[in-house]
Amino acid sequence: MSHSPLEFSVIDLDESCAARRGLLKLPHGEVETPAFLPVGTQGSVKAVTPEQVAETGAQMILANTYHLALRPGSEVVREAGGLHEFTGWKGPILTDSGGYQVFSLGELNKVDDDGVTFRSHIDGDQVRLTPSRCMEIQNDLGADIIMAFDECPPYPASREQVERAVERTTRWAGLCRAAHRRDAEQALFGIVQGGCFDDLRQESARQLLDLDFPGYAIGGVSVGEPPEDMRRVVEVTAPLLPSGRPRYLMGVGMPEDLVDLSLQGIDLFDCVVATRHARNANLFTSKGVVKIRNSTWSRDFSPLDPDCSCYTCREFSRSYLRHLYHRAEILGPVLGTIHNLTWFQRLMSDLREAISAGRGLEFRKSCHERGVFSDRSAPAG
Amino acid sequence: MSHSPLEFSVIDLDESCAARRGLLKLPHGEVETPAFLPVGTQGSVKAVTPEQVAETGAQMILANTYHLALRPGSEVVREAGGLHEFTGWKGPILTDSGGYQVFSLGELNKVDDDGVTFRSHIDGDQVRLTPSRCMEIQNDLGADIIMAFDECPPYPASREQVERAVERTTRWAGLCRAAHRRDAEQALFGIVQGGCFDDLRQESARQLLDLDFPGYAIGGVSVGEPPEDMRRVVEVTAPLLPSGRPRYLMGVGMPEDLVDLSLQGIDLFDCVVATRHARNANLFTSKGVVKIRNSTWSRDFSPLDPDCSCYTCREFSRSYLRHLYHRAEILGPVLGTIHNLTWFQRLMSDLREAISAGRGLEFRKSCHERGVFSDRSAPAG
Repeated sequence: MSHSPLEFSVIDLDESCAARRGLLKLPHGEVETPAFLPVGTQGSVKAVTPEQVAETGAQMILANTYHLALRPGSEVVREAGGLHEFTGWKGPILTDSGGYQVFSLGELNKVDDDGVTFRSHIDGDQVRLTPSRCMEIQNDLGADIIMAFDECPPYPASREQVERAVERTTRWAGLCRAAHRRDAEQALFGIVQGGCFDDLRQESARQLLDLDFPGYAIGGVSVGEPPEDMRRVVEVTAPLLPSGRPRYLMGVGMPEDLVDLSLQGIDLFDCVVATRHARNANLFTSKGVVKIRNSTWSRDFSPLDPDCSCYTCREFSRSYLRHLYHRAEILGPVLGTIHNLTWFQRLMSDLREAISAGRGLEFRKSCHERGVFSDRSAPAG
Repeated sequence: MSHSPLEFSVIDLDESCAARRGLLKLPHGEVETPAFLPVGTQGSVKAVTPEQVAETGAQMILANTYHLALRPGSEVVREAGGLHEFTGWKGPILTDSGGYQVFSLGELNKVDDDGVTFRSHIDGDQVRLTPSRCMEIQNDLGADIIMAFDECPPYPASREQVERAVERTTRWAGLCRAAHRRDAEQALFGIVQGGCFDDLRQESARQLLDLDFPGYAIGGVSVGEPPEDMRRVVEVTAPLLPSGRPRYLMGVGMPEDLVDLSLQGIDLFDCVVATRHARNANLFTSKGVVKIRNSTWSRDFSPLDPDCSCYTCREFSRSYLRHLYHRAEILGPVLGTIHNLTWFQRLMSDLREAISAGRGLEFRKSCHERGVFSDRSAPAG
């Protein structure tokens, strides 16, 4: 066996819940967990430079295998020297399996026991994705953590559909292990499927554990299921995953999810909400989401969030931000993204401190009391 | 008389031409001339933060009176503490008169001897702009240099139209002087009109000189006239303007214009071309304009311009830039703008050095020989 590219240590356990604070060491740097990964779908965290992403405190980002495989193509990225060289992001990167995107974005997709055939959402070209092709692409991209190719069933899905997806996901995971050519540089994670069926989640986890991956993800969530189902899936699945290995909840979530599910023992999260909300003029603050386009802010010369130390909050007013969004200036989304990402990282850093202090549950309660998770368009009290 | 907010010194004269190198001291800082001012039409140099603008080497920016008067309104900017506070740009700012925009963007505009009535291009609201209102707005905005309200005739225009515009521009300039309330903080420039009629340019300059402004602009160019006419206008007008005061050519220009017309004794330029070209994927390099969307660059992993030291050229390849533009990632225009602005500032800085060395004409020749001003889509030789 070659030397593992991943080292994970649990630093503190919060006795009041299942939360743990950890440190993940990867070829391109260290990541404090629980961690929120900004999403750089096409090799760019939308609207910001890698330098600005680093300034938000983010230590690791996610990039999407599906999108990059279509454009510019994984061969181009490999020739560039991998994603780190290509995109200029120096820290750790995680690439997803492409499974979720194939099923949500690909057209006319057809799954069989060996893989998926679909039409590109960009130009309609027919593309075939199999476990070995998925590994080839992710080996080309060169991320620190890569994901086994999975079948991600839609919501709702019948028990039979989900059973078959679990079975395929396990078999494909084994094929991915075998096809992975860069074991010493890239850590391959398995993805637990099972939809909203508790016993299938358990079965999927059990099967994947046999394959002894250095980390595990919970996939097949954020596909339209009710929030309580997603939370139950985590509650059922997380405890089955090895406590000494990182647990990654894919595609989640809102600030409240990040806090609640860290308390369930999740270590890694990714979600587009921070950046997408920023482009839609929804900005997170210590008193809830501010809809910055509202006329309420037209003459508000105070910072967006007085508790935030990001560039946006240090240098600009709500009035100016509102003006930028109304005039469709690119700087609006840029400043909004810098802020939202910083705000998410600060939330995670506060949460990690709370976990170390054994106060995870209190931290969650205090967030609710302070209105951190609220959505508001009226001025702060 | 109150203390002047503007101090201009000519540092070096180039004996080979009419060029001079100068230093302009303003309330918010110093500007080395000849200078190129990036345009922040609505209070934001499109796609970049004030911090990034400063990093390009830009010392002064332009903002548009017409746009800011409509949105967010000059009162909002005044309440914010002026444009510097509102936009976060700490260096000198110049606001234009609004004249050019009223005539090019305003709908149904009607000029009379006292001012202009037009409909806003945003919502059709009727707006009235007069010399005193123009001063009130620019006093609210609080730029270091402000411009007298002028009538900017279209191209082509009859001799009679231009004669009347010259006459009104002079009368309005006097009214502006009288209405300007912040003489100690903001330097008011007169604008020479006269279209493409040499004698009317001379007449306009003569009349405005009587008003003894601390600086003069050549306006009414870049309105669609042939390039050779614009150049002749400068050749005729520049020598008539006081040699000890800054000369500003409004709305010009392309790199070749900046070099050629600095050699005619122009000190200040502004133009949207650097930022607009960046958003359109046309990037300036030491070997001419690169159309970065072209397939030529898909696997070119070299920097955009190896001679450039900007963030974009230090960190990213042509291949990645091409990918960003093709995928409509905001980061494309951001990185393109950082580069183009840096490239323009470097051109001006090289030009200033050449002027100091008495080699202005040689510098122009060498730019042509090196293909600096060319437009190309093929790879560099």
